Amino acid sequence: MLAALYAGDQTFRLEQHPARLPGPGEVRLDVAYVGICGTDLHIKHGAMDRRVTIPAVIGHEMSGTVAAVGEGVRGWSPGDRVTVMPLEWCGRCPACVAGHQHVCHDLVFVGIDSAGAMQQSWTVPERLLVGLPPGLGLDAGALAEPVAVAVHDVRRGGVVPGERVLVVGGGPIGLLIACVAVAAGADVVVCEPNPYRRSIAVRLGLRAVDPADGEVPATLDTWTGGAGVDAAFEVSGSVAGLDTATSALRVRGRLIVVAIHSQPVPVDLFRVFWRELVLVGARVYERPDFEKAVKLLDEGVIPVAELISAVEPLDRVPAAFEALESGTGVMKVLIDCQAGQ
Amino acid sequence: MLAALYAGDQTFRLEQHPARLPGPGEVRLDVAYVGICGTDLHIKHGAMDRRVTIPAVIGHEMSGTVAAVGEGVRGWSPGDRVTVMPLEWCGRCPACVAGHQHVCHDLVFVGIDSAGAMQQSWTVPERLLVGLPPGLGLDAGALAEPVAVAVHDVRRGGVVPGERVLVVGGGPIGLLIACVAVAAGADVVVCEPNPYRRSIAVRLGLRAVDPADGEVPATLDTWTGGAGVDAAFEVSGSVAGLDTATSALRVRGRLIVVAIHSQPVPVDLFRVFWRELVLVGARVYERPDFEKAVKLLDEGVIPVAELISAVEPLDRVPAAFEALESGTGVMKVLIDCQAGQ
Repeated sequence: MLAALYAGDQTFRLEQHPARLPGPGEVRLDVAYVGICGTDLHIKHGAMDRRVTIPAVIGHEMSGTVAAVGEGVRGWSPGDRVTVMPLEWCGRCPACVAGHQHVCHDLVFVGIDSAGAMQQSWTVPERLLVGLPPGLGLDAGALAEPVAVAVHDVRRGGVVPGERVLVVGGGPIGLLIACVAVAAGADVVVCEPNPYRRSIAVRLGLRAVDPADGEVPATLDTWTGGAGVDAAFEVSGSVAGLDTATSALRVRGRLIVVAIHSQPVPVDLFRVFWRELVLVGARVYERPDFEKAVKLLDEGVIPVAELISAVEPLDRVPAAFEALESGTGVMKVLIDCQAGQ
Repeated sequence: MLAALYAGDQTFRLEQHPARLPGPGEVRLDVAYVGICGTDLHIKHGAMDRRVTIPAVIGHEMSGTVAAVGEGVRGWSPGDRVTVMPLEWCGRCPACVAGHQHVCHDLVFVGIDSAGAMQQSWTVPERLLVGLPPGLGLDAGALAEPVAVAVHDVRRGGVVPGERVLVVGGGPIGLLIACVAVAAGADVVVCEPNPYRRSIAVRLGLRAVDPADGEVPATLDTWTGGAGVDAAFEVSGSVAGLDTATSALRVRGRLIVVAIHSQPVPVDLFRVFWRELVLVGARVYERPDFEKAVKLLDEGVIPVAELISAVEPLDRVPAAFEALESGTGVMKVLIDCQAGQ
């Protein structure tokens, strides 16, 4: 079977490998689709070389079908359509003992810290599997992981019907958060400088504003009757975006920290104090988030067709990464691993 | 009656004024004690000249007795022992309408934005009064306001029995937070560089650590079995203190932002994301906090005698501020306004 390997130095290479037989408690999957995530771009650029063992098969957003099951596997049979929740936890650290396994102190993120899905055949522990309903396309199923991120973020943000929500950053995760917040009954504005991304937001029925036009504070003030927004999701990873989110919030509003700020960044703690704001960190997802993500996809709540910009075969992984790096005209790119299986 | 006026340029002057008769809905108080707060020091140093109308009677931590009541006042009679909750709100802004009057968009903080208590006679709206129980000393009663701050902070922090709590900053508010957290059933460590303040913490039965000794992270790690603390109160106003609090927290721990950081400061948002931390702004108090503060004082939970370093007469206001500015050997200073009333 064919696998795409991140080989360091911003390169990928394609190799033929024998498929790994499933051991006890494992399942071998025929991979259908793999989404390329912002984290995968960071890996390509060497930013995560401390965690990735080169050469590495990466990829953690996927769908597929069960090809074979190992000893002791009860719940799954060949032909079952599945996605993978790519987290493995220790079960013993204080976070696990407290019930927060998804942020285990020694969390293994599958596809970063261990081998991922960008290959035709992938063998994983059965406990990572999440079933896909019969009517859901495998292309849509590959979005379950990023949708689960959005579901977790919206849940951590405590969004309730009728609330006004600002999403700062209109990339794939930002737009998914917006869609999930709308599904939760919120009224949503997306703040995004990139006109292509704003155009997608508008096509999804969202209201999109451009931070460069200088009118955003006045627009939000009018929208909220001078109160400020109930919740703001910081998905931009920029100091300017963080400031937009912080200054937009009402008294006791919630700022959900979704983006990764790898260095400490200036935060207006005076505003946090003055308005009694709440900042909430949100990382990955828990199993109920993943299951709800599959449900939202199955219900058609997530506009899959608008979000998937391109589908490329496995042997075009390098080109797919380059298209994403161009940063315009592209939202989510899927790798189709099915040819030649 | 004698009044101490902040006259700008880091100076106070003493003046004789006629006592103001209470208008409808007002009460004239014979002031007993007034505590000097960190905010009063900021006022003296000109940092709040935009809010203070010079010359100004300042002071917002007080106790006293009702001397006379204006037309329509029903609930109070001469001789009643009281303290004042020094907040006036508009009742119409979005924060007030949402029930968060204590952080009204147009909040008037009495003693900063309007005349305060550092005078022998003070006339205020009756709605600001909070009664003091018969057995509570008027010196202790003057601590109701800062204790109410601590009660509010601990409530915003959601501290529950058995939790491990770090208080970063061992000045008056930090130590009051520590005492209130202990009363709420928490196990508390205070982190404070000043040896005098640490000695007071120890006299209060608290565990105190010195951030300069480099062992604080290891001490907290051992204390919490590697998990991290449940809640950390940032009362230092320093970047180093903020870092100590952020890095000490367990997964989903709460960081309560109590101190005023007047400029944006670097915050480790990666840690906030990675551990799903929650940062909570906490400002002033609501009436139930004030009433609980009086109750805790009445129950003897707050070690008043250890916290009051000195009591000075009204004509020694300048000297009292200088003693506080020296920064050592002094915790809370009260001004006694009773002489010559």
